[in-house]
Amino acid sequence: MNNSFIKALRKEPVPATPIWVMRQAGRYLPEYRALRGKHTFLEMVYTPEIAAEVTLQPLKRMDFDAAIIFSDILVIPQAMGMKLDFHEGRGPVFDQPVRDFAQLKNLTNIEETDMLDPVLSAISLVKNELAGKVPLIGFAGAPWTLAAYMIEGSGSKNFRWAKAALYEHPEAMHALLDKLTANVTRFLLNQIQAGAQAVQLFDSWAGQLSPDQFNEFSLPYLKAIAQAVKATGTPLILFARGAAHSLDQLADTGAAALGIDWQTDMAEAVKVNKNRCALQGNLDPIALYAPRETLKAEIRKVLNKAQGLDGHVFNLGHGILPDTPIESVQVLVDCVHEFSTRGEIELPVVEAGSPS
Amino acid sequence: MNNSFIKALRKEPVPATPIWVMRQAGRYLPEYRALRGKHTFLEMVYTPEIAAEVTLQPLKRMDFDAAIIFSDILVIPQAMGMKLDFHEGRGPVFDQPVRDFAQLKNLTNIEETDMLDPVLSAISLVKNELAGKVPLIGFAGAPWTLAAYMIEGSGSKNFRWAKAALYEHPEAMHALLDKLTANVTRFLLNQIQAGAQAVQLFDSWAGQLSPDQFNEFSLPYLKAIAQAVKATGTPLILFARGAAHSLDQLADTGAAALGIDWQTDMAEAVKVNKNRCALQGNLDPIALYAPRETLKAEIRKVLNKAQGLDGHVFNLGHGILPDTPIESVQVLVDCVHEFSTRGEIELPVVEAGSPS
Repeated sequence: MNNSFIKALRKEPVPATPIWVMRQAGRYLPEYRALRGKHTFLEMVYTPEIAAEVTLQPLKRMDFDAAIIFSDILVIPQAMGMKLDFHEGRGPVFDQPVRDFAQLKNLTNIEETDMLDPVLSAISLVKNELAGKVPLIGFAGAPWTLAAYMIEGSGSKNFRWAKAALYEHPEAMHALLDKLTANVTRFLLNQIQAGAQAVQLFDSWAGQLSPDQFNEFSLPYLKAIAQAVKATGTPLILFARGAAHSLDQLADTGAAALGIDWQTDMAEAVKVNKNRCALQGNLDPIALYAPRETLKAEIRKVLNKAQGLDGHVFNLGHGILPDTPIESVQVLVDCVHEFSTRGEIELPVVEAGSPS
Repeated sequence: MNNSFIKALRKEPVPATPIWVMRQAGRYLPEYRALRGKHTFLEMVYTPEIAAEVTLQPLKRMDFDAAIIFSDILVIPQAMGMKLDFHEGRGPVFDQPVRDFAQLKNLTNIEETDMLDPVLSAISLVKNELAGKVPLIGFAGAPWTLAAYMIEGSGSKNFRWAKAALYEHPEAMHALLDKLTANVTRFLLNQIQAGAQAVQLFDSWAGQLSPDQFNEFSLPYLKAIAQAVKATGTPLILFARGAAHSLDQLADTGAAALGIDWQTDMAEAVKVNKNRCALQGNLDPIALYAPRETLKAEIRKVLNKAQGLDGHVFNLGHGILPDTPIESVQVLVDCVHEFSTRGEIELPVVEAGSPS
């Protein structure tokens, strides 16, 4: 029974800094690629047994302190009636992106469909299999990020359509964001009911908004969701990528923890946060391609910068990349535990590139 | 003779806020597309008469307060011996990216070739044609941004190779960045000698570095270039996109002005800058798709946030997109001049979406 992850989220003392990794159930694992060779991505997401198996794969290899359910943030728009396709090499794509806001009338709410039941079943399956070994995280995409995908149709360099909609149809956008907020909240509560012991809200495209836009079109919705989850007593981790400009406001949303991206200096985040939230992050995923001693030095840097923080969950500052060497992930997990157990004093920083 | 742009860069009083737009000589202009239909991109860059014509196109339509030479930041690596191809829809690509640092020994310096002479000739041609009407800007890519392209081969989502090189071969990277710094400096000085009255240094991929990495692998080189240009008395604009975390340090590099991206709040930039530099920016390029009154409100917001700033050059916070309506650019240029002429008091802000 390893509950360090939940304890850290609650800012309680832990024997060693807990760690999990965004996209830890994913393509860098050969056993994932083997399964992926036999099934489409969406089959894997919507077949509870497969989703459960994929979720548990990384835990069998490494001492991660949490599992995160294998799913996708786009299951919500899909359950609301958007047709989702998964194109190899391009990721998930909505073939009919929302370009006419009249289309939005046709969107239903997730309680009117059973499309998300397999995700909840997968959560229950994993929960049983884990038998309390480590906690299980549920997740959802944040309203702005989902709206951006729905309007753009896919990931995008400039989000030209989604952002133009903010200028052209601000009221329709708020209506859409409201509707998404209700559905995201519902889905997170359902995941908690199904067994998720923490939930993460991914505002992956927060950085595509100017600070003013983030303040108007994302933050109030993040706060509404964080407040609803807070009422359940289950900790919520809020990861608004590229929104370092609003860290101060994010710390007051009611989230238990804030995810910190690698573009933000962890020491700066600690300073702004003033221990209002636990913090999660923020090693650069590319550091996993570094030689071992350099990687260790980078891990030490993050741990050192997080000293003085009540509640640090170690993670990458973005999802792990598909061609990451597994051995580096092993080093990461072991070193985070080892280095953080050793003591409370300043850890020796080995400069990148020098032998240690 | 309109010298507002240079005056603003020198923090001297101006009758109206000067404006130019990144990529103002580009695909949103039908006359550009017509020429582009007859020539490859690289032909246009390397034929002085065509580059000069393209540079002047936007000035014939609109009251921009500066011209910027039509060129590309990748001309330097090309002149150093990297083979550059231009793939339709993908932009410029190095077909043989640097993956083995031994390759770097083969790179020459730009003074050993005449490849950049056409760019300098184009500058002289434009300078003559402008006859002092507005100042002409030269430019170059920053060392980290050029290195990132050379290693990655093209633009990239994660810059997995370029960033891994920072961890794996920090000394070789510093050697490459040193070499690029010498060549960038030389090229900017050559452009000044050919007639450029200001130069802009584009660190387009600064945001791909963590704050620590930016500090180690970009900032010292930006500073070296800024200092060398400063010694000539010609103002340098430093645009480090995505490096808002280091604005305080950037203001001490010796740059005359800092370019502010749209992801940064202009009021915050003014606060951090403390009038050490002039500031350039930072309207969101997507605001040009907004209805006219909303666009005007967004322009007013930027102008208001820049009040108290000695030396504001209006610009977008990123390059203009190819399908931008020209009428919006016209509104932008005219409104910046009109609004900033009207007075020193707080400009009325019309809320986005409401009629005015």
